[in-house]
Amino acid sequence: PPSRLPKVGTTIFTVMSALAAEKGAVNLGQGFPDFNCDPALVEAVSNAMRDGMNQYPPMTGVPALRAAISQKIGALYGRHYDANSEITVTAGATQAILTAILCCLHPGEEAIVIEPAYDSYVPAIELAGGTPVFVQMELREAGYATPWDKVAAAVTGKTRLIIINSPHNPTGSVMREADIQALADIVRGTNILILSDEVYEHMVYDGARHESVCRHQELAERAFVVSSFGKTYHVTGWKIGYVAAPAALSAEFRKVHQFNVFTVNTPVQHGLAAYMGNPAPYLELAGFYQRKRDLFRDGLQSTRLRLLPSDGTYFQCVDYSAVSDLSEAEFSKWLTTEMGVAAIPVSAFYDDPRESGIVRFCFAKKDETLKQALDKLARL
Amino acid sequence: PPSRLPKVGTTIFTVMSALAAEKGAVNLGQGFPDFNCDPALVEAVSNAMRDGMNQYPPMTGVPALRAAISQKIGALYGRHYDANSEITVTAGATQAILTAILCCLHPGEEAIVIEPAYDSYVPAIELAGGTPVFVQMELREAGYATPWDKVAAAVTGKTRLIIINSPHNPTGSVMREADIQALADIVRGTNILILSDEVYEHMVYDGARHESVCRHQELAERAFVVSSFGKTYHVTGWKIGYVAAPAALSAEFRKVHQFNVFTVNTPVQHGLAAYMGNPAPYLELAGFYQRKRDLFRDGLQSTRLRLLPSDGTYFQCVDYSAVSDLSEAEFSKWLTTEMGVAAIPVSAFYDDPRESGIVRFCFAKKDETLKQALDKLARL
Ligand SMILES: CSCCC(=O)C(=O)O
Ligand SMILES: CSCCC(=O)C(=O)O
Repeated sequence: PPSRLPKVGTTIFTVMSALAAEKGAVNLGQGFPDFNCDPALVEAVSNAMRDGMNQYPPMTGVPALRAAISQKIGALYGRHYDANSEITVTAGATQAILTAILCCLHPGEEAIVIEPAYDSYVPAIELAGGTPVFVQMELREAGYATPWDKVAAAVTGKTRLIIINSPHNPTGSVMREADIQALADIVRGTNILILSDEVYEHMVYDGARHESVCRHQELAERAFVVSSFGKTYHVTGWKIGYVAAPAALSAEFRKVHQFNVFTVNTPVQHGLAAYMGNPAPYLELAGFYQRKRDLFRDGLQSTRLRLLPSDGTYFQCVDYSAVSDLSEAEFSKWLTTEMGVAAIPVSAFYDDPRESGIVRFCFAKKDETLKQALDKLARL
Repeated sequence: PPSRLPKVGTTIFTVMSALAAEKGAVNLGQGFPDFNCDPALVEAVSNAMRDGMNQYPPMTGVPALRAAISQKIGALYGRHYDANSEITVTAGATQAILTAILCCLHPGEEAIVIEPAYDSYVPAIELAGGTPVFVQMELREAGYATPWDKVAAAVTGKTRLIIINSPHNPTGSVMREADIQALADIVRGTNILILSDEVYEHMVYDGARHESVCRHQELAERAFVVSSFGKTYHVTGWKIGYVAAPAALSAEFRKVHQFNVFTVNTPVQHGLAAYMGNPAPYLELAGFYQRKRDLFRDGLQSTRLRLLPSDGTYFQCVDYSAVSDLSEAEFSKWLTTEMGVAAIPVSAFYDDPRESGIVRFCFAKKDETLKQALDKLARL
């Protein structure tokens, strides 16, 4: 039968992880930690299973977990989301993103995507019958930045949605107060909704703060805010996240959610709810990952790879132009195969792949893994 | 913003479970067991978490689990599905259904839905931009049956998909060899695909066999076959199932799957894979649930509820016309509120609700729960 997604292949993260495994390379490609989560979290989930918490939870999520999420957002960003009507637990951030797009984007409407962009946004827009409209970030001295004048120029009468992502995958750039204000100026007085992908919310470095859309009343009122427990608690394989949105948007989200996954693994929800009651471990994440970032950057100083800024996320981009003129995809394969370190080509984050000579490394790894990778990269 | 699913409210299962909880009624509404799963399965998942199996698994599922699924289908139904290219692990059957529909149904195409039908099929078709075309089962002496001549008559040049479900929710009817042949006759020589919802595959009673589409070469070659571990292992809250489909269909499925949930909880996959290696516990399910069906039916004999056949699933439908002339929705509420037993109105499984005076009970409950419910229903 004809394909609904004719342009789509296997996601680059799967491709590079498979190649890394095949070649025995250190996998700094796909974004996931190579260390285990807190054993207390494992025990909390195991206890829930032993206690018989194995049947359907409420469709929107276990009440205690929704309450913990609401409390967290309130404490960190000062906005109250009603745990009953404004928080929905999802099977990871990717499911939240598809569901948010399916529930609000009508066939023929447009969604603005700021590139480089996580590779699920565009297929999700296409499945909804919408049209992606692209604006490219610009690489400036201080790193990748969003040219808001170009975003404003991309708005048409058909624009339903603007998708933003900060801290930003793959560039590691972080939106500042001025970015948020520029976005607010663009959407004020329109019917445009915001989808804010904030899965790296707890990984902002050098003392800066995360400008969550939740902090900004004007934007929060028209936003789906998505986050991930996988990134925050070192359990990317648990596939659990959430969406916070005003009641009217949450109601539409849930109409689709209930017919997509219906609901999310019960014991994991109970385990996380119990665990989140403890002094919030996510508050230490920024320090934890900043140290790893610095270790990795220090190690790369002596190579001919040029370091781009990494102000957030657990990603570090490098410009390899001084080393090779292979395409990003070819260079990533070569690095994996010949140098024994897997990376992700940034070109994979563009609809119309462009070559900038930049690849992304993930530094969410044990120090010894990072040192192993640095030893290999030192040969560059 | 305007709704993408304007006709959709909260799913009936959530509504009735909430009412049952509020009224302290015995919940025979939503389909889930009120007993725990095998402790060995809990330990298998706990061990996987302790062993650090907490990061992203492969997008299509953990290889050992895909192999176990392939082996199970081969052993039970005699068809070989390649574990690498033809089996995909999903976040439950509902996600498999939405994903299958999104990946193959193009805007403007039609999908035939046989009513009464599980309530996710139609919203999924609508989200894909397709049009549902309805055929109603007929209630005959032997129970609900599909009038294949009417299905044949519903086929047009735009038909892309026929959705079937056996054992059937909510009616408990089971397709026989003749049904499968009639379906094969309809699709032979067309481009029509089959989506076969077989989540109750191990619950077929009175010595009959499950006519899995996997058994039938001609249909299997054009089918997405969906099943659920939640139903089979008494863990409806774990949200894990799978789809088996020929490689070309699986490839399209995975394009959407990777941008929907990307993948499914890692430790649950490892735990199930380890557990399925043991002598397959699902082979005992039919006997286990048939005994409960009989206990429940025996108890209802003395009431004025007329028992319809239940040849499969863990559902029992009853005709309450001799008791009340309330609508099915009203009668279900009344039963819950006044009689202390929650049921599901069969009208909720129709696009254009029709009143047949029939409600559905779930007998996947402890014997003592069933007896409690029977005591209350005896007052009818
Ligand atoms: C869903 S797999 C990709 C993980 C990730 O977020 C990334 O590597 O960018
Ligand atoms: C997804 S909740 C509904 C469970 C079920 O399959 C049913 O009760 O019919």
